[in-house]
Amino acid sequence: MFEAAVYVTLKKGILDPEGKAIKNSLKSQGYDQVEEVTTGKYFLLKIKERDRTAAEEELRQICEKFLVNMVLEDYSFELREVDR
Amino acid sequence: MFEAAVYVTLKKGILDPEGKAIKNSLKSQGYDQVEEVTTGKYFLLKIKERDRTAAEEELRQICEKFLVNMVLEDYSFELREVDR
Repeated sequence: MFEAAVYVTLKKGILDPEGKAIKNSLKSQGYDQVEEVTTGKYFLLKIKERDRTAAEEELRQICEKFLVNMVLEDYSFELREVDR
Repeated sequence: MFEAAVYVTLKKGILDPEGKAIKNSLKSQGYDQVEEVTTGKYFLLKIKERDRTAAEEELRQICEKFLVNMVLEDYSFELREVDR
């Protein structure tokens, strides 16, 4: 059994209006030490698989087919074995 | 200068229809080893601050006031010092 954390962010150069809005809002509230805000998505998956290589390959397919828009987004993941 | 990664997830017991829809979709496509999908948000912030404790306290305030709905969501963060 594996637990996967998937981090999805916008590719460099793709505008992030939500991040910009948060940054501006923070600034207007006095948090002007914040230089940049980037938004992304975060997924946690539980995968019933014994072999790490198989789980990794499966997760890669799931990311690229379902979770990530490969035109606009980058992703990375962490996979760790758990008991249940 | 610090770089912060903030992970926001739904509290235990709060329904996650998006996660459930992804899980069902994966299942219908043959990825039936996936037992659970949880969705969340992910933020990256750059904070111009020298002192780790100050950056941490600031980040905590930003999370609780701006980024996280404390009624429905949990959060955690990682803070690491960067050159620039």
